[in-house]
Amino acid sequence: MSKFAQDPTDDICVATIRALAADVVGKANSGHPGAPMGMAPAAHVLFSRFFNANPKNSKWFNRDRFVLSNGHACALQYILLHLLGYKLSMDDLKQFRQIDSLTPGHPEAGHTDGIEVTTGPLGQGFANGVGLGIAQAHLSATFNKEGFNLIDNYTYVFTGDGCMMEGVASEAASLAGHLQLGNLIYFYDDNHISIDGDTAVAFTENVGQRFLSYGWQVLHVDDGDRDLEGIYNAIVEAQKEKNKPTLIRLRTTIGYGSKLQGTHGVHGSPLKADDIQALKTKFGLPADKTFYVPEDTYKVYAAIAARGAALDKKWDALLASYGQKYPKEHAELTRRIAGKLTDGWEKSLPVYKSSDAAQASRKLSEIVLTAITPILPELMGGSADLTSSNLTRTKAMVDFQPESTGLGTYKGTYIRFGVREHGMGAIANGMHAYGGIIPFVATFMNFVSYAAGAVRLSALSKHQVIWVATHDSIGLGEDGPTHQPIETAAHFRAMPNIDFWRPADGNETSAAYYVALTRKHTPSILSLSRQNLPNLEESTIERAAKGGYVVLEEQGEELTIVSAGSEVSIALEAAVQLRSEGVKVRVVSLPCWSIFDLQPEEYRLSVLRSGAPILAVEALSTFGWQKYSHEQFGMFGWGASGPYKKVYEKFGLTGSNIAAVSKKVVAFYKQKGGEVVSPLVKAL
Amino acid sequence: MSKFAQDPTDDICVATIRALAADVVGKANSGHPGAPMGMAPAAHVLFSRFFNANPKNSKWFNRDRFVLSNGHACALQYILLHLLGYKLSMDDLKQFRQIDSLTPGHPEAGHTDGIEVTTGPLGQGFANGVGLGIAQAHLSATFNKEGFNLIDNYTYVFTGDGCMMEGVASEAASLAGHLQLGNLIYFYDDNHISIDGDTAVAFTENVGQRFLSYGWQVLHVDDGDRDLEGIYNAIVEAQKEKNKPTLIRLRTTIGYGSKLQGTHGVHGSPLKADDIQALKTKFGLPADKTFYVPEDTYKVYAAIAARGAALDKKWDALLASYGQKYPKEHAELTRRIAGKLTDGWEKSLPVYKSSDAAQASRKLSEIVLTAITPILPELMGGSADLTSSNLTRTKAMVDFQPESTGLGTYKGTYIRFGVREHGMGAIANGMHAYGGIIPFVATFMNFVSYAAGAVRLSALSKHQVIWVATHDSIGLGEDGPTHQPIETAAHFRAMPNIDFWRPADGNETSAAYYVALTRKHTPSILSLSRQNLPNLEESTIERAAKGGYVVLEEQGEELTIVSAGSEVSIALEAAVQLRSEGVKVRVVSLPCWSIFDLQPEEYRLSVLRSGAPILAVEALSTFGWQKYSHEQFGMFGWGASGPYKKVYEKFGLTGSNIAAVSKKVVAFYKQKGGEVVSPLVKAL
Ligand SMILES: [Ca+2]
Ligand SMILES: [Ca+2]
Repeated sequence: MSKFAQDPTDDICVATIRALAADVVGKANSGHPGAPMGMAPAAHVLFSRFFNANPKNSKWFNRDRFVLSNGHACALQYILLHLLGYKLSMDDLKQFRQIDSLTPGHPEAGHTDGIEVTTGPLGQGFANGVGLGIAQAHLSATFNKEGFNLIDNYTYVFTGDGCMMEGVASEAASLAGHLQLGNLIYFYDDNHISIDGDTAVAFTENVGQRFLSYGWQVLHVDDGDRDLEGIYNAIVEAQKEKNKPTLIRLRTTIGYGSKLQGTHGVHGSPLKADDIQALKTKFGLPADKTFYVPEDTYKVYAAIAARGAALDKKWDALLASYGQKYPKEHAELTRRIAGKLTDGWEKSLPVYKSSDAAQASRKLSEIVLTAITPILPELMGGSADLTSSNLTRTKAMVDFQPESTGLGTYKGTYIRFGVREHGMGAIANGMHAYGGIIPFVATFMNFVSYAAGAVRLSALSKHQVIWVATHDSIGLGEDGPTHQPIETAAHFRAMPNIDFWRPADGNETSAAYYVALTRKHTPSILSLSRQNLPNLEESTIERAAKGGYVVLEEQGEELTIVSAGSEVSIALEAAVQLRSEGVKVRVVSLPCWSIFDLQPEEYRLSVLRSGAPILAVEALSTFGWQKYSHEQFGMFGWGASGPYKKVYEKFGLTGSNIAAVSKKVVAFYKQKGGEVVSPLVKAL
Repeated sequence: MSKFAQDPTDDICVATIRALAADVVGKANSGHPGAPMGMAPAAHVLFSRFFNANPKNSKWFNRDRFVLSNGHACALQYILLHLLGYKLSMDDLKQFRQIDSLTPGHPEAGHTDGIEVTTGPLGQGFANGVGLGIAQAHLSATFNKEGFNLIDNYTYVFTGDGCMMEGVASEAASLAGHLQLGNLIYFYDDNHISIDGDTAVAFTENVGQRFLSYGWQVLHVDDGDRDLEGIYNAIVEAQKEKNKPTLIRLRTTIGYGSKLQGTHGVHGSPLKADDIQALKTKFGLPADKTFYVPEDTYKVYAAIAARGAALDKKWDALLASYGQKYPKEHAELTRRIAGKLTDGWEKSLPVYKSSDAAQASRKLSEIVLTAITPILPELMGGSADLTSSNLTRTKAMVDFQPESTGLGTYKGTYIRFGVREHGMGAIANGMHAYGGIIPFVATFMNFVSYAAGAVRLSALSKHQVIWVATHDSIGLGEDGPTHQPIETAAHFRAMPNIDFWRPADGNETSAAYYVALTRKHTPSILSLSRQNLPNLEESTIERAAKGGYVVLEEQGEELTIVSAGSEVSIALEAAVQLRSEGVKVRVVSLPCWSIFDLQPEEYRLSVLRSGAPILAVEALSTFGWQKYSHEQFGMFGWGASGPYKKVYEKFGLTGSNIAAVSKKVVAFYKQKGGEVVSPLVKAL
């Protein structure tokens, strides 16, 4: 396999892909024909000569991974999936960008068979690829044995100028170089065109030199439009380099074959009908046929598929014989591939009594990780250079590092992400997409915002990524308003399919981990305090796992205070004072809104019941609390720098001030008169 | 000034800064002593030999700008400001990180005299510096004349490993190289330490080579701890290079002088008392004195201040004589420095009748920009490679580019940011911080999230940055859920001090620009549609400028529908149908919540009045609408790829479905009985 042999069908295969791309985008009258047409030769060489996957079993664990980071070019990916025989018909191609089709405007993992990761938001796929590479390196180091190369796939990534400009890709590239991920082979579609026209207007850096500085191998193919042999040789070269990721810079012509080739005109608009006809003629295809695939092309791709199916079968046999020789490892690997947690793991979750010492929830999180990571080795992750603040590295953990650094091994599960929050989030998505791993990542709550683009894709693509987000309010104190989240919780509480937890104590922290680990298709953010929190009388893992529950009950109440996280104990302080003054008050803890929303209506209405006003209290923006309360008290602007107790005082977030605010609320609703109905009672 | 002359006071000045840094952090018992101690020599050489500023007039327009991108090292900056005679006393230094002090945990622009930009969130200051450089290059090209180098300052930036790892800095660095900003001089504090310990754990790239690839000049000072002459020569060299930004890599020892120097132990924790005493002795300072400044040090810094004051005075004279020779340019420059808009500019804002053709609000935005940019040349900005989609480049605009590219000039006001949203947002903050410029930036609404870290600092630091955020809902159609914002509006509506606008038509778009341009201390996001929107009967600039108003009035209503942006016209369609069925309905448009909240209570209660239920409708997450409505209908999950009308249909966001939903709401509240009180009627 080390010398390129031109096949008589190569040209027609490449032509087919190019013409199909023009047809697919043309029929939709929407989309991006240029990049698919330009990248067709690289795609054909890669898939025909190198790529190992079984289209009839798209989840085969040791398959090569393909990522189209320039996801707008997805016509290319859909065409390849169709030709290879994945569950994507010619009719599906004709439904490109139509409602409820399998061929949406950008590739969506979980939606279309064979799509590994969701791409389109630029730079994400690039970083996902690094996550796929980390997962492969870790799992092969952990499970492969002499004679049993069970896990040895490559990750191939196509990327364009847009991805190359994004900071998230820069972050991931730098880390991939540091980690010496030889299993990564990236194709940079260097076509000199982006949406604003020639890349000369904004992007004149030396990309190759930059990647060399990151520690990558950089190869060049000067005629990516026609030099199949050059592409082939570059991939061979890339595979040979075991200790560096490889970037293959392909100089290509966007929209190759079109009258407008090489211009911005073919980037994001369909080609004209006569242009499509002319290019088909130029490529030796019938000009009058649309969505036409020559028999030879189907044959070539069927053979690729057959090769993949045979590899899959061979791998099954290898796995079976591995099971005979290494039954324990086999059981563990298959458990992890199946995404099943170790039986009884939840018994290790720490449980607290109210007499236990107050601790910061970041510390409580560390105690959970210390308890469960030995039982759930699939928990692999780290921090964006805040390990000693996030408390994410347990004593038993080993760093995930190349052996040559002397700092760890690929068997290690703790990743030093560096100050690269966005890259970290996107890498975690890739790690999860690989399988066998539940990634956790950590930074200050405020800097999860840096990674918002990646968090959104965790949620959209159902990646079970766990964010350990410490220093989650003005309670972080001296670092001041630049570091104190205000709007951050509202942002993630408003996002679909993500659980945002703000635990109030030890049992609630255990509950947050319990739910985060059992929700296989939902990412979670654990928003944790820097300051110590007392353990509540009424908290249990079971109760907190409902997302909301009563922490102080009272019949005939005049007020319910609802709160979350570090302010629950302040609400309880207020309640003690109010009771001493004869005011009847209940307190509810609502650590996770999305989980509370999943509870039966009857339960929810018993927690946030009608009959008395509900006051929400949190040391964050009050935005969104109107859904669960009649009145809100919280942060109405930015925080302040100072010792945390003084900061809480400054903003009135103390037991005595909340008691005063509460009395105002009680008086207001008494004066207003009429029934006070729970905000949960609604028409819609 | 081209040869270094060692001064006998240099060593004591550097020692003073180092010892003060230890004292400041020690007294606060919180903060970062290591970087200030390591960077003291560079700071002393820079300020004593090169830096032009007038501490008694910290806003002198042609001052050199200093940015501490590693803002956690702010003890250094506060000490320099104190020594130079800015409004920062020794008592202020003793109040480091205390509540309501002038010396918060990270430097805040607008809070402390002499701080140019807020830093601390890593990478931001780095990118702010590029914005300061762009502003200088543009204003000098625009206003300088032969013999009148009115604007010729440098921007000096200190940056550490953390900033260097952040993608936002990578994006800005690449653009700065492309733009050939010779006015930028960056000092990279290469001390091999970050929070996780030795940078060898995560950051082993070749930083110098990377910056060469961006087109920077890269210089090295191997002994940044002691080699004052080396530092001096590097700055001279940097100033000589007119067509490249310069990175000076200073190899330093973090916490130089401490027993723990060179280790992570001095990064983020105070030094021990005995360690501080020992280092004072080592540096020739009295060990028993804290917060001690030798007379010589004060003298040296007073001389620097006097030099700056003289330069300021000289500049005033130059400006006055410029005014005599170039009265028109002088008037324009002083107007822009004062931040005053051109008289009568608002008369150019487009006004629409309901009979005018429906247009996309992104197009309406282009019409506004076309009308006002000739009158307000301080509007300078561009798009993150989506110019043809965001419609931000008017026909008259010229690109801001180095002449050598042949693509524009530094006089140009249109910036090709490349696909670098986060860098773009942070650069805009720097441009605004410079003065004389109102920056606008553009991308798809969904990708403003990539820049969340910078947007937050616009709001915190009161930078009037205008985001043109197009494609703002499922109405973008075929690009699908990866590009369709759901949670994005909630995120920015929850953020303090930012106006999030979602205009419904032409007059509302003009109103959004009107308010955004007149709110000098608040950034704005203009969330704009891809699809056409009809002009409303009742909209005017004046009414929309209140943030909310009635677009369809009715007495004795059974329902008020409140909406924003592209869904207002759908709400009106529903109203027409409801009226035809005899249901009495009003409709309210709420294009900007934060502006509506500023209106008198009486007005707000007249718009969202008691008496009937209020139903909110928006093609976004309903999160947050509970503040203004009893019931909410919107997106309860992700969007979909398809032609936009089909997508709206799929999610029930059509006139007929909203009419059906409305009837359900009306029936529910009739059955429920009792008074329906406006959600704005509250105790708090
Ligand atoms: Ca390109
Ligand atoms: Ca450092």
